Amino acid sequence: MAKVGIMGAGSWGTALALLLHKNGHEVMVWSISEEEVKMLSEEREHKSKLPGVKLPEDMVFTTDMEMTVQDKDFVILAVPSPFTRETARKMKPFVKEGQILVDVAKGIEEDTLMTLSQQIEEEIPQANVAVLSGPSHAEEVGRGLPTIVVIGAKTKETAEYLQEMFMNESFRVYTSPDILGMELGGSLKNVIALAAGIADGLGYGDNTKAALITRGIHEISRLGVKMGGAPESFTGLTGIGDLIVTCASVHSRNRKAGYLIGQGMSMQEAMDEVKMVVEGVYSTKAAVKLGRKYGVDMPIIEQVNAVLFENKNPGDAVKDLMMRDGKAEHNAKPWS
Amino acid sequence: MAKVGIMGAGSWGTALALLLHKNGHEVMVWSISEEEVKMLSEEREHKSKLPGVKLPEDMVFTTDMEMTVQDKDFVILAVPSPFTRETARKMKPFVKEGQILVDVAKGIEEDTLMTLSQQIEEEIPQANVAVLSGPSHAEEVGRGLPTIVVIGAKTKETAEYLQEMFMNESFRVYTSPDILGMELGGSLKNVIALAAGIADGLGYGDNTKAALITRGIHEISRLGVKMGGAPESFTGLTGIGDLIVTCASVHSRNRKAGYLIGQGMSMQEAMDEVKMVVEGVYSTKAAVKLGRKYGVDMPIIEQVNAVLFENKNPGDAVKDLMMRDGKAEHNAKPWS
Repeated sequence: MAKVGIMGAGSWGTALALLLHKNGHEVMVWSISEEEVKMLSEEREHKSKLPGVKLPEDMVFTTDMEMTVQDKDFVILAVPSPFTRETARKMKPFVKEGQILVDVAKGIEEDTLMTLSQQIEEEIPQANVAVLSGPSHAEEVGRGLPTIVVIGAKTKETAEYLQEMFMNESFRVYTSPDILGMELGGSLKNVIALAAGIADGLGYGDNTKAALITRGIHEISRLGVKMGGAPESFTGLTGIGDLIVTCASVHSRNRKAGYLIGQGMSMQEAMDEVKMVVEGVYSTKAAVKLGRKYGVDMPIIEQVNAVLFENKNPGDAVKDLMMRDGKAEHNAKPWS
Repeated sequence: MAKVGIMGAGSWGTALALLLHKNGHEVMVWSISEEEVKMLSEEREHKSKLPGVKLPEDMVFTTDMEMTVQDKDFVILAVPSPFTRETARKMKPFVKEGQILVDVAKGIEEDTLMTLSQQIEEEIPQANVAVLSGPSHAEEVGRGLPTIVVIGAKTKETAEYLQEMFMNESFRVYTSPDILGMELGGSLKNVIALAAGIADGLGYGDNTKAALITRGIHEISRLGVKMGGAPESFTGLTGIGDLIVTCASVHSRNRKAGYLIGQGMSMQEAMDEVKMVVEGVYSTKAAVKLGRKYGVDMPIIEQVNAVLFENKNPGDAVKDLMMRDGKAEHNAKPWS
């Protein structure tokens, strides 16, 4: 049995808290909100973010960060990406040398182009930072539906330790040393989810969406490999797997914002309508910057950028993509 | 302008006939059925297989095989996979040395384990055989919705010639020399579509399906690469792209048969209910044989096989998959 601290009581933090509790671990969940802690302690259910999923009586909810971090075998960071750096900075005094922190959020900081694990390492140099990612709607994990994810860590020992902590018969865990590839795939996929939403909004079909997903991961992979990620991470669970689940979901904010844009709204109108952070909009800016920095041609992402920030007509963007010069799909084999 | 013969007036043959006609080519379509030829000639619409899609007056429909093949710049084979070898044998006397034949069906012959292009080459040694594959529901191509496919050919010249013939602003075409990888991905993906249907029938969610798709292509790729295919074909449009479109479709026979099995029917009951050839059932047999022949471990395909042919309970099959020993996702990078 391990002692686990979970920073963040959103849908994902709560679902993982329940999973780890089921696996026999002692779980403490932190939230910045007194009100949320009170609600969770009394109701034993996150009525707005994970409705219908009952939480056990011996799960502790608190606003006390020190108590949540100290003496824990590992701590999960499940705060939204814009708050990761700030939360890490506040956690720093309580983190022991070599303590395992598992980040489960995704995103790239616009100014620094750093992934979340890089931000955490910069703020808490003494931490042993790992990540968990893959196709995993929190609602489905909360309901115990079969889910497969990947744990990324620097050493095999840390990865296999965490694999053992999380794995059960409805939650399978693979390990990977490619933290960077996992994080890049998980963040940049939101740009393609926006593109898929735009295609849906334009009234296009499954053919268009499948092509966008496949060619979209192809260009993310080209960038990610140049940055040092492994191609297998982009074609794996944390890349295309996560993208498939995002594009299949009618609840995805990225897909929904894209849908509204495809139907004729401007980016700002779509953001106002969705009323929540649309991660893909920020990821698009980061992806374009990264593409230019590393000299990688990313036609789909460039068109999404033009639609979002240069008022390009989405239908014209699709035509421009379709009518680029005819190319080979890949160069992995020679012609006869 | 090219002269094109199309063997087979099903939904895919008809949709491609219309596409090539729109691109300015002269198109003749063969069907084995007098009745179908009469209906198409009179109605100018395939009422049962491609309803709502009007076909032009100058498109010729015929049961005359010789006329459809001779003097054509290229001929498309769009007959169902069980009839490909037989049709090729009958076409042989009319095919000129070096004439281009484009196969657009998918399948692996159970006894010989040969792909369709291999069967065609065996029957018509003088032909220059190419393939067209990718995420392409015929109904959507018929309606002119944006679609992206791959043409596989032995030489760059043939591939680029066909690319130019097919490509327009709603139909983008990539080229590839990897005919084998394209065909293996396109055929074996149906096993995974069955698995995804089974998961849906068991009441599982998007997480499970995305994981099955991603890990399913992973094992097909391991086999296909051992057989000589390029990994990029399996992670490309003709592999995972085609699988995504199949799993998204409520019309897919493979997905539907799987769904019924997940709900408790036997394989035979599901086949009777779907009332059509369920390609994935044959592909499963071929995949298991190929896996054993080439010594490739394919856990998902082995479980589908056990459910289909050994009456294994589908829920137990999922549990067995989830609880295999914890593994690394890939071995592309070393640990620190």
